[in-house]
Amino acid sequence: MHSQTPTPDQTIDPDRTVQLLDTTLRDGEQAPGVSLSPDEKVELARSLERAGVSVIEAGSACTGAGERRAISRVTDLDLDALVTSFCRGIRGDVDQALECGVDGVHIVVPSSDRHVEGKVGTSRADNLATTAELVEYATEHDLWVEVIGEDGSRADLDYLAELAETSLEAGADRFCFADTVGHTGPEHTTAAVSRLAELGPVSAHTHDDLGLGVANALAAVSAGADLVHCTVNGLGERAGNVALEEVAIALSHVYDVETVDLETLYGLAQRVSRATGVELPPNKAVIGENAFTHESGIHTDGTLKDDKMYEPYAPETVGRERRLALGKHTGRAGVAATLEEHDVEASDDEVAEIATRVTELGDRGRRVTDADLLAITEDVTGDDRERVVDLLDLTATSGGAVPTASIRLDVDGEERVASGTGSGPVDAAVSAIREALGSSADAELESYHVDAVTGGTDAVVTVEVTMVRNDRSVTVARSEADITRASVEAMVDALDRLLAVDQRPLAPAGD
Amino acid sequence: MHSQTPTPDQTIDPDRTVQLLDTTLRDGEQAPGVSLSPDEKVELARSLERAGVSVIEAGSACTGAGERRAISRVTDLDLDALVTSFCRGIRGDVDQALECGVDGVHIVVPSSDRHVEGKVGTSRADNLATTAELVEYATEHDLWVEVIGEDGSRADLDYLAELAETSLEAGADRFCFADTVGHTGPEHTTAAVSRLAELGPVSAHTHDDLGLGVANALAAVSAGADLVHCTVNGLGERAGNVALEEVAIALSHVYDVETVDLETLYGLAQRVSRATGVELPPNKAVIGENAFTHESGIHTDGTLKDDKMYEPYAPETVGRERRLALGKHTGRAGVAATLEEHDVEASDDEVAEIATRVTELGDRGRRVTDADLLAITEDVTGDDRERVVDLLDLTATSGGAVPTASIRLDVDGEERVASGTGSGPVDAAVSAIREALGSSADAELESYHVDAVTGGTDAVVTVEVTMVRNDRSVTVARSEADITRASVEAMVDALDRLLAVDQRPLAPAGD
Repeated sequence: MHSQTPTPDQTIDPDRTVQLLDTTLRDGEQAPGVSLSPDEKVELARSLERAGVSVIEAGSACTGAGERRAISRVTDLDLDALVTSFCRGIRGDVDQALECGVDGVHIVVPSSDRHVEGKVGTSRADNLATTAELVEYATEHDLWVEVIGEDGSRADLDYLAELAETSLEAGADRFCFADTVGHTGPEHTTAAVSRLAELGPVSAHTHDDLGLGVANALAAVSAGADLVHCTVNGLGERAGNVALEEVAIALSHVYDVETVDLETLYGLAQRVSRATGVELPPNKAVIGENAFTHESGIHTDGTLKDDKMYEPYAPETVGRERRLALGKHTGRAGVAATLEEHDVEASDDEVAEIATRVTELGDRGRRVTDADLLAITEDVTGDDRERVVDLLDLTATSGGAVPTASIRLDVDGEERVASGTGSGPVDAAVSAIREALGSSADAELESYHVDAVTGGTDAVVTVEVTMVRNDRSVTVARSEADITRASVEAMVDALDRLLAVDQRPLAPAGD
Repeated sequence: MHSQTPTPDQTIDPDRTVQLLDTTLRDGEQAPGVSLSPDEKVELARSLERAGVSVIEAGSACTGAGERRAISRVTDLDLDALVTSFCRGIRGDVDQALECGVDGVHIVVPSSDRHVEGKVGTSRADNLATTAELVEYATEHDLWVEVIGEDGSRADLDYLAELAETSLEAGADRFCFADTVGHTGPEHTTAAVSRLAELGPVSAHTHDDLGLGVANALAAVSAGADLVHCTVNGLGERAGNVALEEVAIALSHVYDVETVDLETLYGLAQRVSRATGVELPPNKAVIGENAFTHESGIHTDGTLKDDKMYEPYAPETVGRERRLALGKHTGRAGVAATLEEHDVEASDDEVAEIATRVTELGDRGRRVTDADLLAITEDVTGDDRERVVDLLDLTATSGGAVPTASIRLDVDGEERVASGTGSGPVDAAVSAIREALGSSADAELESYHVDAVTGGTDAVVTVEVTMVRNDRSVTVARSEADITRASVEAMVDALDRLLAVDQRPLAPAGD
């Protein structure tokens, strides 16, 4: 990729070699509520290898027997990437890492006085001595060794340099500047890493507590660090570690320095999200649902004229696609483009009127879906449409052993009743709908999304459904306190829209 | 606040005056799927005023009549903050802003050739002339005027400076360097803003597409910008604008430069999240649920010894509290602290065994709740406990007009049956439980959270319930495909835990 503006005085040379260490499986997993099974660690390690990460920190061997089994499964993969374990400054931790067959270890020793004295209860001098001893022990066992000076950003810089020097002299492969608590800014990072880089190879480990994770990682690289610790999706303790995808795209786009295979980033993000259960935030660089979505009239209009108008780089760069959305800021160009996707014709005046009505709807609600746009269009163009499928009645029973639902639909003037069972009330109702529609219900449920519910049990739930039939897709949203009703109404509406396009007579029930 | 490490060569003087402009109500609202009602804009404007924001961009008057009513409602509040509207470089837009009674306008004109020629279809020279004319028009109407050079980070810097000079000479109060598409890095930002700042007051408008929103905002400030555009929670087009809370805490913590009242930040974040429907990501600086939560043994142990061990600043600084969580990385100190909260005694050996079992549970599942910990503790200490409340049967009917549920409970050996109605199946079941337990069910449902459901209608749903009774709180999580069953099981378990502590005989049903 090539950056598009003159960027004078760039502090990172495009010929620099910078590598990424991924610690999603260790520091990422330390995020509250996140736990990865051995199978998940194996799957993610394979994905990280495909992405081209240089070092995979697979876990912390001292955590327990289950963790050691998981690390061993990763080392058994025999990856090109170096596979490592976190170790406290304790010989037993290194022994446990060795049991797992790792290629290397991160020996984490205190570096700030708060950690040297307050946490570990040792002295600066003793800390140097035990670190040297442990590094020698690890290198004697043929391990690649990185010493991490924990809380390095709050350490006295003279002592930090002494710790680095001691580590490197004892045989460590590199020393890591760690902003363990996400405390510092780019100036101090630059000063500290510059000094450490005079002594030997330096890594950077940054956290995002001040929103400065990427800024500090780049400052470290510009000061000489050549290995950056990160996690996919910025998972990790507290506000998280610096996000791998942000470091990779920032280095590539701003500095022309390539690290990993950018096209794999979105797939990687999705796999990590599924494995950890931590959803991708909509407004997050590279991985957010909205990162390449345009709603506002000005942005949509501009993007339709020229892809690059409102995007720093093409979504395909990171394995994604561009999306246009409807809402209160949608202008005429966005409406016209969406109608075209649905093969619906409207005059310029009609498009203008539809755009006004979309804005009005957006002014009240929060989301304008395809179904809303099509309903407005029918109203404006006067093309009244009879419903093909209408929901007359719905009953779903849940809580017991066999969730069951019955449904009464009006299908092209004919009343149809059917029942079904499923894994929950909504799933049972879906079976009933399929039964009632027979083979006409050949639409696929492409996505079913329920916003997280927070508050009371009577909170309004928003359900969004996307159904696809013969390459045509329709999205419908419903908000109600009854999740069953909201889900079924949305699905019946989507089916109605999809079937209305078809000219064939509808199939009988249950065929 | 005072930073705790020597930070040599800081590029921002602590005596600098830096102000924040919040554009949550305009650029934030342009995020796909986000729409704010006039009432919500008024509520949020009040909160922004309380936080101490200097400029509130209330919307874009040209969007439509609804938007103009909303902006007028905000200007009617007569806030200390300057209330402004976004305007395209069109006289009609300024007139519409004037109709709303705003204090000022942002006149957005193209600055890169891509925008000058490709989007607006004008020439560099004509663009200068129309900008000057419009600035004069706006200032003649006593408006505060900021000219935003759209796509400034991709503009020819000579032309950008010419545009700024023209704007300021025509009477504009300031010129804004806009990284509209989140394209650039701190070096170019520094170079551009330094040049613009020689001409007059400069603002910075940064986006987070490369994860560099904060880095670029700080680079702009260090180069002379004194007004930073941001949005609460980093909402906005694509990956979003730079987050207000991150700019504020970074300036305060790293540079000792104070902008807004930091203690209001978390409340503000929650209000914006509720109004926009965009959840707060768990791993986000300042506002994320986990930003001040510690799970891992090392971090919990350290934090129990010294608050500052694993935190850059106290959570109270931004209106929050510290939290300890249980999981596979929990060590003995975390277990002991949590047991103490529950008034449960265990020997050192028992605590060690419980910690091992918590790790094992975390190895398999994804979340360890209070209820899990207490169950393990009973098993380890041999203090077998009879259940006070047990779920025997549950049926809930939903989808129709009146969601209804019935429940059969074993309450202290006595079978109780009750029914209830509610706004959905879970809510109806809660009524039934309350009816069955009578006044013993005086526990409050403090929080009810269902993780977002993505995938099929048969996806497993995770429900987490926190109930409180007499200052004691218990959290229970359940994952099942049937949301009704998961919710009720979690609630009955939580009630059982809370009632088990009480020695009084349980009240009869329905009292």
